[in-house]
Amino acid sequence: MGTSGAGNGPRFGVILSGCGVFDGAEIQEAVACLWAIDKHGGTSRCLAPRRELDVIDHTTQSPTGETRDVLAESARIARGEITDLADVNGADFDAIVLPGGFGAAKNLCTFAVDGPGCDVDPHVARVLTEAHAAGRPIGFACIAPAVAARVFGKALAPTLTIGHDKATAVGLEKLGARHVAMDVHDIAVDEVNRIVSTPCYMEAERIGEVFTGCDRMVGALLKMLASAPARA
Amino acid sequence: MGTSGAGNGPRFGVILSGCGVFDGAEIQEAVACLWAIDKHGGTSRCLAPRRELDVIDHTTQSPTGETRDVLAESARIARGEITDLADVNGADFDAIVLPGGFGAAKNLCTFAVDGPGCDVDPHVARVLTEAHAAGRPIGFACIAPAVAARVFGKALAPTLTIGHDKATAVGLEKLGARHVAMDVHDIAVDEVNRIVSTPCYMEAERIGEVFTGCDRMVGALLKMLASAPARA
Repeated sequence: MGTSGAGNGPRFGVILSGCGVFDGAEIQEAVACLWAIDKHGGTSRCLAPRRELDVIDHTTQSPTGETRDVLAESARIARGEITDLADVNGADFDAIVLPGGFGAAKNLCTFAVDGPGCDVDPHVARVLTEAHAAGRPIGFACIAPAVAARVFGKALAPTLTIGHDKATAVGLEKLGARHVAMDVHDIAVDEVNRIVSTPCYMEAERIGEVFTGCDRMVGALLKMLASAPARA
Repeated sequence: MGTSGAGNGPRFGVILSGCGVFDGAEIQEAVACLWAIDKHGGTSRCLAPRRELDVIDHTTQSPTGETRDVLAESARIARGEITDLADVNGADFDAIVLPGGFGAAKNLCTFAVDGPGCDVDPHVARVLTEAHAAGRPIGFACIAPAVAARVFGKALAPTLTIGHDKATAVGLEKLGARHVAMDVHDIAVDEVNRIVSTPCYMEAERIGEVFTGCDRMVGALLKMLASAPARA
């Protein structure tokens, strides 16, 4: 059922948040995740919540006043092969990945607007909680660790990175996460919570750096998959 | 000025046609081209015409009745770093690349609707003609060879591939091109006309196949760049 993948490998759910860095999923990061999953022998299923996003004109970075549907826009990245987050259980997949882009911090949660007081989409919270409870590794790229901090911060104090941006890091820590500053090619690996994160375009200046980070993140998730959950 | 790239390598113009396979540029192919250019040490500048596209809902593949601006939607793939095709000369770049998607055959030219009787966007035709006249290699992925056939078919009879689809191949031949059937990982290299093409999602079942094709296409363009034009 995958957007991509050879067929019998680990099944990844890729949670998208629209289509375009300023109001949705960062496209290059999303594609890098799909590429990395395929490269490592996995299959992908793109997922997104059905809710409205506020459109930003990507030539001017200004709001247009329009809204668009997060699921329908995310389907552009997925070549039409996408499932409403409301229709899945996090445990349906072997691993979950969230690319970044402002959509992760405006549509999946509201961290970009509300900071540590942010809300989170109920299906995003449910699916991630189900996945974690089932021992599934979860990867967060770019600003998507804000979603991890909102969903898991208080309960798990996960170790996360968003790169070197201090203000964002403080926001994540206020949500209960532990932040580690990392360079663009690095990944923060929280073995206990089975969570991996990488800075991508929070730090990247070149698309190749994004691909390296996503490749390493997916590789680390698969390494976790090969070992039993070590949670207390 | 690039969307991506280390800075001093060959400068590629990447002509986009919107954002999403059913009404614009095929996103995964576009990103694969940007990735391949960066991987080979080049820099990219995304380009698109300023014109309207008819929106297709990517969850249903049905028209929504809306229109959107090709340039503004293409800017989503380019992270906002994009230039109106009207403002460039094809000779400004060392090489040009066109990803596929229905946008290439509906917005850059009208091959998807009008077949061999298709029209072509005047700036697309001008920029490609300028690039060719200056000896610049040009790459066409997926259905984008239809644009090459429309612009260069009668004058140059370029050798192109769109994979194995017979009806599409016949359409290209009616426009004056020579078609060679090729598999997903292959590239058709027209040394005389300095044109390279590869099937991508005309044949691909996995994203990794698209990346392999784009990687090989960009590699072949750079090999051409290293040699002087051999045109008569």
